[in-house]
Parts: sequence; structure tokens; C-alpha cells
Amino acid sequence: MRKLSHLGEFRLIRLLAKRAPLAPGVIQGIGDDTAVLSLGKGPGEKFVLFTTDMIVEDVHFTRAMPASAIGRKALACNISDVAAMGGVPKFAVVSLGVPPFLEIRFVSELYQGINRLARRFGIGVVGGDTVKSQKIILSVALIGEVQREHLVTRAGARAGDVIFVTGPLGRSFETDKHLSFMPRIAESQFLVKHFGPSAMIDISDGLASDLGHIVESSHGGACLYEERIPKTPGATLKEALTDGEDFELLFTLSNEQGQRLLKLKNKKFRFYPIGEIVAQKEKITLMDSQGRKRNVTMKGFEHF
Amino acid sequence: MRKLSHLGEFRLIRLLAKRAPLAPGVIQGIGDDTAVLSLGKGPGEKFVLFTTDMIVEDVHFTRAMPASAIGRKALACNISDVAAMGGVPKFAVVSLGVPPFLEIRFVSELYQGINRLARRFGIGVVGGDTVKSQKIILSVALIGEVQREHLVTRAGARAGDVIFVTGPLGRSFETDKHLSFMPRIAESQFLVKHFGPSAMIDISDGLASDLGHIVESSHGGACLYEERIPKTPGATLKEALTDGEDFELLFTLSNEQGQRLLKLKNKKFRFYPIGEIVAQKEKITLMDSQGRKRNVTMKGFEHF
Repeated sequence: MRKLSHLGEFRLIRLLAKRAPLAPGVIQGIGDDTAVLSLGKGPGEKFVLFTTDMIVEDVHFTRAMPASAIGRKALACNISDVAAMGGVPKFAVVSLGVPPFLEIRFVSELYQGINRLARRFGIGVVGGDTVKSQKIILSVALIGEVQREHLVTRAGARAGDVIFVTGPLGRSFETDKHLSFMPRIAESQFLVKHFGPSAMIDISDGLASDLGHIVESSHGGACLYEERIPKTPGATLKEALTDGEDFELLFTLSNEQGQRLLKLKNKKFRFYPIGEIVAQKEKITLMDSQGRKRNVTMKGFEHF
Repeated sequence: MRKLSHLGEFRLIRLLAKRAPLAPGVIQGIGDDTAVLSLGKGPGEKFVLFTTDMIVEDVHFTRAMPASAIGRKALACNISDVAAMGGVPKFAVVSLGVPPFLEIRFVSELYQGINRLARRFGIGVVGGDTVKSQKIILSVALIGEVQREHLVTRAGARAGDVIFVTGPLGRSFETDKHLSFMPRIAESQFLVKHFGPSAMIDISDGLASDLGHIVESSHGGACLYEERIPKTPGATLKEALTDGEDFELLFTLSNEQGQRLLKLKNKKFRFYPIGEIVAQKEKITLMDSQGRKRNVTMKGFEHF
């Protein structure tokens, strides 16, 4: 019998995606940060975004961690996905699995973490399910909205586009950024309103891996400038390339818009140009200050 | 420390509901079969329905059960909730927790169960999340749509309304109906288009408990006619009153509409009148053929 461990997550998702039923109104199904849906009669001026994330005790968190941080993170990951599509979050449902002998305070604080972040973003927590379970399980589904003209998928990057990130990368787990990060909705709204990104994703798997998703979907490649990649203090280049859960936005702009963004004064936000999209399909290279190139893989880069 | 086991599911939900953040566009938050949401500019002619259900291995199912039946049920419960609001299902996301050494075939069949039922109802499976977990976890979130004038909540039943169910009740687990039931979307659509139910819910907790939700939300009471309650062959009255997961619709019609439904010839569907709504708040009584009355509680009925 073939086991899941032989298949790996990405191949499993691809298998499931291939067989998933389509329906009228599905603009984007499995394969981007969120689904993009058209509801009601006709296309309308907005699309609905739909996404979900599940976290499980002793895989993604432990009971020793502050419950409010666990709840906050479960919602924050979903908000980050909505930001990556150029949308704003609207409504969430929360499914919770709990052992019967868990302290009420733990559940109460968990929801405090969810509710506080929901209020910060004007999200209504509108339903859910509570079930018995040996391990604590938290599954959040989020509905967002995006103006049709603001929608950004992973698929629009073109050769010559400039690649940007919204913040330093690496060591998210060591610095607790993976718990405390603020989803980049404000940055995303600024970008989609004024700069029209050609592609966008949030960095959850790691820069190399998530840039891989963009170049794969966009049928291009990428060249990263080694010294331009912003690193969390203490993080190595390899950590900045491969550590997950920074939840920064990774996006591309046409050269013209890219130059315009770089010249912007009085910026409320910081955007770091880190490379450019190239025509060579699905290959990511890393160039150092001497112009020497290395290949980047999902696991980091290949040594000279 | 107070434990969850002291609180119980209903009180936990009430506690969480009280604290849940509201947002513009929430027509109905926690406390009905699904959330009812208004998306886009202005009210529009349709509302969005949003609901979720989670099932966990060794609590709700075992690995010995057919995987396709487990997947099917996880989606079917959500569709049933959408039916109970008078809506139709549109899009689903599926979160799956799986042990790494689970056979691929199990996951494949699980999704087959989901996908087959999704196709049957024209539902797009548009996203999800796959994570590692010791026990198999399946969490489905579903978006539906309802015409504004078709929306039925739990809150509209009035004294004198006739109470109906769509099928026989009891022994759902013993007969495997809890796995094989067909969500009552067709019946619901027929009713909301032609009869305008005043209140509706799907029977997941049991007739006594779910009728309790209707009378509580509607600020009324109910009288059930003992001999009119349709029972699954082999089921006792107590089982028909208290067994869960029949997923039949329980609904109320004004006396006029109720009489009209009962006179209908050539019916595609069967609707069983089982009692009436009374003014006495939150009390449910059971009347036998001699006119003797007993009180019904969530656990069944009180003996003479």
C-alpha cells in the first residue's frame, strides 16, 4: 500500500485538485492563496475569496503556548491569504476540537486571540462547530472580498517584472514572528489600489518555495539578488530563503511600476526589491554582488 | 479550574457566541443552522450562507468505516444546514488532518465521497488545507446562497403554526442513515418556493432538542401528537424523539399553508404533520390519542 509519506504535501494537493469538482462561478479553484468565486447573478463588481487553515496540537502548537496566540495565528494565516489576493477579510467560521477535560480558560483565551484580531480587521466571527477530540484542533475558514480590478493571482508575473517583499525573512519560529505577525492587508490594499501587482503570494512555505509557486503559475523564472534579500537580524541567507511562516507578501510589479514604487517618498510601508522575473521557465537563480549565479531549490541554493 | 466537561456544548456555544465580533453585513451570526451574510454593495437580492462542520477519527468515525462514506457525511451535514435555511449549496473548502503513514487509497476514497456528493449538488470544491495529525480530521466549510425572500431561520414560528418533518425518525446510527442520508435540498426548495415555512431546522441533535431550538428562538412552545410522529421501522417513541443525525427537516407552516400542503395531490415528497406551535414559552408537550399530555425534555419525555 502506498502511504501519504511517499507522496508529500504538494503532490497530494495536486492529486486532490485534479479531481475536485468545478462549478459555475469558480474563477479560481484550488491552487492559489484563496479560492476566487463569483456569487449572485452575473459577475458583479466584486469577487468572493474563500480560504481555510487547520492547526493541530503537538504538530503546529503545544498547550504550553499562550492560547490567545494560537487562536490569533489560526485567523492571521487566513487573513494573510486574503491579503495575497488583493482582498479584504469579511467573515470567519471557527471549528474547534477539544478534550472534555480542557480548562475553560484555555478555550476562552483561544477565542480572545481570534476575536481581538477579528475586531482589528472588522471581521465577523459568524459560526463554527465544537467537537470532542483528544488533541486540540482549530480550523478557521474565512470569506473575503476583492474588487475585480484588484484581484492578484500567482499567475501574472512577466519577464522583466521586479520582485519585492514587504519585510525581512528567516527565523520566524525562533523570533516568534510566526505568532505575532500582522497580516499585510494594509500593504496589499496600498499596492492593489496604486501599483497593480502582476502576481502576489504570502510567504508561508519560504521565499524559495513560494517564489517557485509564482514562477510555476506564471510560466517564467526568477533571478534573486543575494545582497538585496532582507534578512531578520541573525538569520543566514539560507534561512531567509527557506524558513517558512514569515507571512510577508512576495509580489511582482512591471519594471515601470517597480521604479515608481522605489522612488516613492514618505512611505508608510517598506518594500524591498529582491530580484526580477526572467523568461527561463521555473528556474530560480541567486546572483551575488560579483555577478556569480547559483541555482536556488526549494531546499535553499546549490553550492558552487 | 473549570473544565469544559462541566459546561456542555450548548453552554460553550452560547458563551462563544456572546463574545463573537460582529461586522457589517452579518444578517444572522452564531445561533442558526448557518450564518447569513450580505456581501457586496447594498443588500442585493441574495444572501450568502456560511457554515462548517468538523469530524474526528474515533469520535465521529473509525478507520474501519468506508472512507468514502466518511467524506460524504462531512459534506452532507453542511448541505443539510444550508437546506434548513432555504438555500442552495455552492462552494466548499476541505481541511484534512492525516497521519503520514495513512494509505493514499484511504484519502483518495474519502475525497471520492466528498466529490461525488458535491457533483450531485453542483458544489465546487475550491480549496482546503492538508496537515499532519495523529488522528484523521475532516473539516468542511460550505458557502451557499439564498434568495432573500426564501430565507427561513429558527425564529419565525407563531402559535397555531403546524409542525412538520420530512421523514421518519430514530435509529439513524443503527440503520446507517447517518451516513447515507440525502440532504433535503429538493424538499427545502419546494417548500420555500411554494409554502413559505415560518421556521426550519435540520434534525441533527434529535427532534426534542431541535424543536427546542425552534421554540426558544421563536419565543413559543410546541405540542406534539404522539401517534403522528413518523418512526423509523423498529424505533421506539423515545428514539424518534431523542436520537440524533436523522438530518430530516423540521419546519413550521401557518395553519393555512399547512392545510394546503396536506391537501396537495401527486406529491413528490412526503411531509408529516406532527404537532403545532403554542403560545406557552419554551415548553414542549406530547399528547397521546386519549388527549393525555406529558412534558418533553431534551432527553425525551417525562413519564406519567
